[in-house]
This record gives sequence, C-alpha cells and structure tokens, in this order.
Amino acid sequence: LESKPVDYFQALLEPLHAADIADLLEQLSGGEREQLIELMGDLFDAEVYSHLDYTVREDVVEDLDTEKMAEIVNDLASDDAIDFLEDLDEEEQRELLDAIPAEDRAFYEKHLSYPDESAGRLMQREVVTVPSFWTVGQTIDHMRDKKIELPDDFYNLIIVDPSHHPVGMVKLSKLLRTKRPTPIANIMWEDMKIIPVNMDQEDAAYLFRQYGLVEAPVVEEGGRLVGVITVDDIVEVLDEEHEEDILKLGGVKEDDLYSDVVETTRLRFSWLLVNLGTAIAASLVIGLFETALEKVVALAILMPIVASMGGNAGTQTLTVAVRALATNELTTSNAFRIVGKEVLVGGINGILFAILMGLVSWAWFQDPALGGVIACAMVVNMLAAGLAGTLIPLGLEKLGKDPAIASTVFLTTITDVVGFFSFLGLAAWVLL
Amino acid sequence: LESKPVDYFQALLEPLHAADIADLLEQLSGGEREQLIELMGDLFDAEVYSHLDYTVREDVVEDLDTEKMAEIVNDLASDDAIDFLEDLDEEEQRELLDAIPAEDRAFYEKHLSYPDESAGRLMQREVVTVPSFWTVGQTIDHMRDKKIELPDDFYNLIIVDPSHHPVGMVKLSKLLRTKRPTPIANIMWEDMKIIPVNMDQEDAAYLFRQYGLVEAPVVEEGGRLVGVITVDDIVEVLDEEHEEDILKLGGVKEDDLYSDVVETTRLRFSWLLVNLGTAIAASLVIGLFETALEKVVALAILMPIVASMGGNAGTQTLTVAVRALATNELTTSNAFRIVGKEVLVGGINGILFAILMGLVSWAWFQDPALGGVIACAMVVNMLAAGLAGTLIPLGLEKLGKDPAIASTVFLTTITDVVGFFSFLGLAAWVLL
Repeated sequence: LESKPVDYFQALLEPLHAADIADLLEQLSGGEREQLIELMGDLFDAEVYSHLDYTVREDVVEDLDTEKMAEIVNDLASDDAIDFLEDLDEEEQRELLDAIPAEDRAFYEKHLSYPDESAGRLMQREVVTVPSFWTVGQTIDHMRDKKIELPDDFYNLIIVDPSHHPVGMVKLSKLLRTKRPTPIANIMWEDMKIIPVNMDQEDAAYLFRQYGLVEAPVVEEGGRLVGVITVDDIVEVLDEEHEEDILKLGGVKEDDLYSDVVETTRLRFSWLLVNLGTAIAASLVIGLFETALEKVVALAILMPIVASMGGNAGTQTLTVAVRALATNELTTSNAFRIVGKEVLVGGINGILFAILMGLVSWAWFQDPALGGVIACAMVVNMLAAGLAGTLIPLGLEKLGKDPAIASTVFLTTITDVVGFFSFLGLAAWVLL
Repeated sequence: LESKPVDYFQALLEPLHAADIADLLEQLSGGEREQLIELMGDLFDAEVYSHLDYTVREDVVEDLDTEKMAEIVNDLASDDAIDFLEDLDEEEQRELLDAIPAEDRAFYEKHLSYPDESAGRLMQREVVTVPSFWTVGQTIDHMRDKKIELPDDFYNLIIVDPSHHPVGMVKLSKLLRTKRPTPIANIMWEDMKIIPVNMDQEDAAYLFRQYGLVEAPVVEEGGRLVGVITVDDIVEVLDEEHEEDILKLGGVKEDDLYSDVVETTRLRFSWLLVNLGTAIAASLVIGLFETALEKVVALAILMPIVASMGGNAGTQTLTVAVRALATNELTTSNAFRIVGKEVLVGGINGILFAILMGLVSWAWFQDPALGGVIACAMVVNMLAAGLAGTLIPLGLEKLGKDPAIASTVFLTTITDVVGFFSFLGLAAWVLL
C-alpha cells in the first residue's frame, strides 16, 4: 500500500460506486483502512461513509477531525446525518453540532431527542407538501420554481391542511397525467398510513410490508407533519432486524465480524457463561443418578441421544414460533391452536423416533428393557420440546421481551433436563 | 360462523384492507377458512389473494373454480399473476391459461419459462419507456394521453434506444421540474443497474440493497428491455430470503406454520433423522471409552458440558459466518483473516472457560487431575468450534451449496465428537 503514489489509488477508486469503495474499506484490517482513507483524501466523502458497516464507522470516525465530520454531515440527507451523529459519543456530538449551521443544529438536536430505533430517527425531514386547496397547475408551477429546494428522491406529494396535518397523498405519476385546473384534493388518495414519530422502526417496517407502501408521512404528537419515511429506509431496517433475529437465535449479541479479537471474545463470553450455567444444571441432574450410571454404562453412552433429539426438535419449533411472532402471524387468537399442533407434531415424531431408537438400542446392547426405556424417554422429551418451543417465545413476548434473544438457552435447558431426567430416572426405576 | 347471515360478514369485512382480510383468513383453521371465503363472495378478490401466505394459497386455490381463478389472474399485476400461476400444478395451470386472453397467455407462458426465483419471475412487464430522441414536452404529452395504459405505480421512465435497449432512466420528479423543450436524453441518469432476466432474485435484491435502488430495468439476452423490478418486490424477496435463512439454520425445511400436523411432521422428520445419525455417531465415540466410564462415573456427569460449550461457541461463529456470506461480507479475500480471528476467539474463550470449569470440577469431585482434564478438553473443543464454525459454511459455499442449510448438523457433529473424544480420551490416559 505504501509503495504506490497517491494518484495511483485515487485513479483506481475514482470510477467505483461509493457502496463498493465502502465494501473495500470493510475488507481491510484496521491499520490498512486508516492508511487508505488518508490516501483517499476528498474521495472519502459522506456517500462512502453512509455505506459503511456500523462497527467500521466507529473505527473510522475516531480518525476524522471535526471539520471533516461537519463537511460529511452537511452533505448527507437528514436521515443519514442522524445516523452519523448517533454513532458519536456525547462529547463528539456536542463538538460537531457546534460546528454546523444553527438552523440545522436545532433540527438535529430535536431528532436526537426521539427514542432510538423510532420512526423519528428513520424519517427524513425533506418532504414536498402541498396545501389541499391548490390546483394541479399551481402544484406543478411550485415544483418548477427553481428557488424551492426539493429532495433528491420522492414519489408522492403530501397534501396538508392549514394546520399542517397530512390529509392525503398524490402520486407523481398521477399528477403528471392530470389536467392543470383540477383541484389537487380531487386526485389525492386518503387511506395512507400515518406514522407517529415515536413508533418503533420495526412496527413501521411491518406497515410498509403489510400494505406495500413506498412512502409514509410521519407526524408528531398532535398530528403535525414532521417528515417522511421512504421504502429504501425500510429495506435497511428489515436488513437490520433480520440480522438481529438471526444473530440472537445464534447466541451472538451483535454483528462482530469487523470487531477485533478482544471485543469479539468479550461479546461472546457472556452468552457462553449463561450456557455454562445451564450445562452444569443439566449435569447436576445426571449426578442424581450416579448409582444407575455406575451399574449400567450403556446409560452414559445413550443419554446424549435423548437430549440431542429433544434439543433439535425444540429448535425447529422455536424457530418457526420466533419467526411467526416477528411477522405477527402468531397472535393470542391462534396461539392455543399452534401450541397444540406443535405438541402433537412433537408427539408423533417422538413416537416414530422412539420406535427407531428403541430397536437400535435393543440391538446395540442386547437389552429389550433398555430399548423400552429410551423409547419412552424420547417421547416424553419430544413432547416437552414441542411445548417449550412454543411456550417460551410466547411467554417472552407476553413479558415484553424479544422472543429471539434468550429462547434458545431456556429451550435447551429444558430439553436437557427433561431428557436426562426421564431417561436416567426411568432406567433407575426399571433396570435396577 | 354459521349462525349469522351473509350480509353480516360482508359488512364486517368491507372496510378492511385486503392485507388485513388475508391475515384474518390465515388465522382460521382450514374448514373455517373455506366457509368464510364462500361467504365472502366477491369480496375475495385478487388483492386479498396476493396477500395470503404461500401455504394458505395452495389450500385456497384447491377450492376455487377456473372461472374465479381467471378473474383473479386478470385483475392482478403481471408479477403477482405469475406468483398465482406458479402455485398451481401443471394441469391446473394449463386449464387456467386456456381461460385467459391469448395475448396475456403468451406472456405468462414466456414468464413461466424463466427459472424459479429469477429476476424474470419477479419483474412486471408494465413499464413506461420513452425513446431517447424525445423532448420532455413530448414525454409529458404521451403520458397524458388517455388512450395509453400506464402501470399504477412507477417512479422512473426508462429511456430506450431504437432497438429497445435501456440507455438511461429519468425520475418523475426530475421530469416535472424540467422545461418542455429539453431533450429527455439531457436529464436521464445513465449509471443505472441493468438486471439480466436470468439473474437469481437474491442477487437482484443484493443490487437493490447495495446501491439503494428503487427501480431497475430487466433485459433479456441480447439486451432488449422486457420489464422492470421495483423495490416493493425486493422487500418481499428480502423477507423470503430472511425466512429461508432463519428456518434453515433452525433445521426447518420450509415455513410450516400453516401446514397441517401430518405435513409438518413429515417436513421436520428428515432433519431429525439426520440428527439421530450424528447423535449415534457421537455415542459410538463415547462407547470407545466404556472402561473409563465404568471406573470414573464423574466422566459421564461432566462430558455433556464439554460438548455443549463447544456446540454453543461453534454456533456463535457459524451464525456470524453464514450471515456474512449471505451479505457478501465474507469473501475469499478476507476468509483467511476471519478464520484466524475466530479460532483465536475460540481459543481465548476456551482458556477462560477451561480455568472456570477446571476449578468447578476440582471442587465438585475433589479431584485436581479431573479438573485439568476437563480444562484441556474445553480448550481443544472450543478451538475446533472456531475452526469448524467458519470452515464449514465457507466449504459449503465453495461447493455451491447454501451455507445455511446443513451447517448446524455438521458443526454439532464435530463439536460433539471432538468434545467427547478429547475429554474421555484424555481422562482414560491421565486418570486410569
């Protein structure tokens, strides 16, 4: 990287899309990245920054001076600028806000006062509004007025009443196809979804998906229009939520692909510690049956199979339930039916695998009674798996917790404990 | 459901959005659903259908006659109609195609010839094209022409050359703000992404996300424009891919929330069977150390802890790797660094938990040598977990397989086998 002149890199990067430059920066190690950004000079701009991954941004921001940061914030659309400001710690935020024009500063301060991951953080304030008493002609003339600054991308006009409440929306394609004297109120559609500024971004994303929205007005308390959310912001939210769901189910707190070794180790540690606790709990259950294990060594050999099958059947149920809760497909009105179905599915598969494993054990250890014991334990544990796989996420949701986050650990604790207890307990009772 | 008159239901459902009616239908059991659809009469239309979940659609389609189906297909936008046709079996497809106008039929037949989950299936053919030699005025006049049918929603015009190749796009907002005599070619942007009709829908979604696209032209071989993909289709694809990723990692073949008990049991069975195989393999490893287990029962009590910690650490790594592969963040250029990092993280956490668990075991069984054995086995298994958690998904990707689908089962097989073998093997060597 050092042997080449600065021009070389700039010429190399110049033709690339900002998103691709960002990808390139992400792939480098911390030190190389810092070097390249220095070499890039003005090529490192707001656009490239906005495409970087969150973890990488934090790294990059540390190396920028306030002047460069202020330049980036001024160049970003308001929603991306908010993203930028969010990444900074309080002191840096203060410093940066002091360096940008007073008018913008007030806006950003207000925005940062909205809750994290709310519609207010997601929206952009640049929105094209038209009073409801205008005609199509007036609207078009207004938009043609060079003095008026319009956002880069917009697909609808938002029609507002005198107190600036949104009353309808007009598609640009509709506007183009309508004669000038028509009142704008005649061509607006009124059943748009209005999003309160405090709404959680996940709920906003749900509305967009459910109703196939492209744009939705955002209002503050009292109903005044304060901004607009577009579908491209929603694509990002969906992506984030997707990442969150999948990582939480896998026992990872946050995406640590770009974190360094120490940070990653720290992030993973706490989940593993919880898991150690539950694993020890399961071992205590095994410990209850020391005498049985001493007498019949086959029990030690077979017991992981019962626990493993329960864990896997439970994970299947859990995955479907967590996903259904996230998409609002599992609700209180059908919860009872779904739980019943999952227990039934667990029971049927339990019986099938009980027969299979019973025969395998019988053949392996030449002991029909042992086969019977493992078969019964298998059915019990897979019924428990179906029950726990649905009730745990439903319960967490009821308590207002995210069902994805701790479900897996609760589930495997239950299937391990039930698996070991039913198998070893039955064995102790029948075989000894 | 039966006691009320038909009008009652129609009055009840009338004011609801189609997406909400679809949700209601999804929540009902099969029999109730059939009944309600019958009661709904004309209220059950293309729009409601297009919002139904795939599994439910299959169910619903069985109860419709060809006439009703043809009506639905005619009312749907072309991309949704394709969706509808895809759900049918071949015979029904043929029957339905014969019942719709010949012109549309040819179009649908062509569309159905594109590969499953390709851009061709996703696109809509309704697209507003403008020859590159027109002026803004001509374009606006053309769009105002009542005789010309335009799609309901569009945000860009696609500018084409005489051989119908896309050469640029013009935002409607830009069109509105430009003077009539300006040539349309002067205001178009040319660096749009052009999507080949055979591109996988996941790759198309990647382009939309990476470059923040709202609309992209789709071309057939040779470069002729055949349709357009809009971001709302992409939102659905992202949602589907999300579902696929999360379900596959959880060992579920497809979303079976709305499947009946028998179907669900069948879908879950094959994965559980694979898991039974690997669980038996792990037990065979345990069986190798029968003598050690007979002599030291503490080994049977502690061995699940080693396996469980390896499995969980491996799942963490695996989740991050699968996710990074899906978003193209893990590539051959940084694979080596990421694998190294994960092994290091596994090693460090391995040492920390080895110390912890070593002390716990020592205290529990009053045996320092046993503590040492479990500590060593823990380090070995967590190193293996870091290695397997990255190499398995990378290997599957290299082989052209989906890394999500079988990663978990390979991983737990490895962590179980390595966990049991290192712990029991070391114990047999040191303690006996």
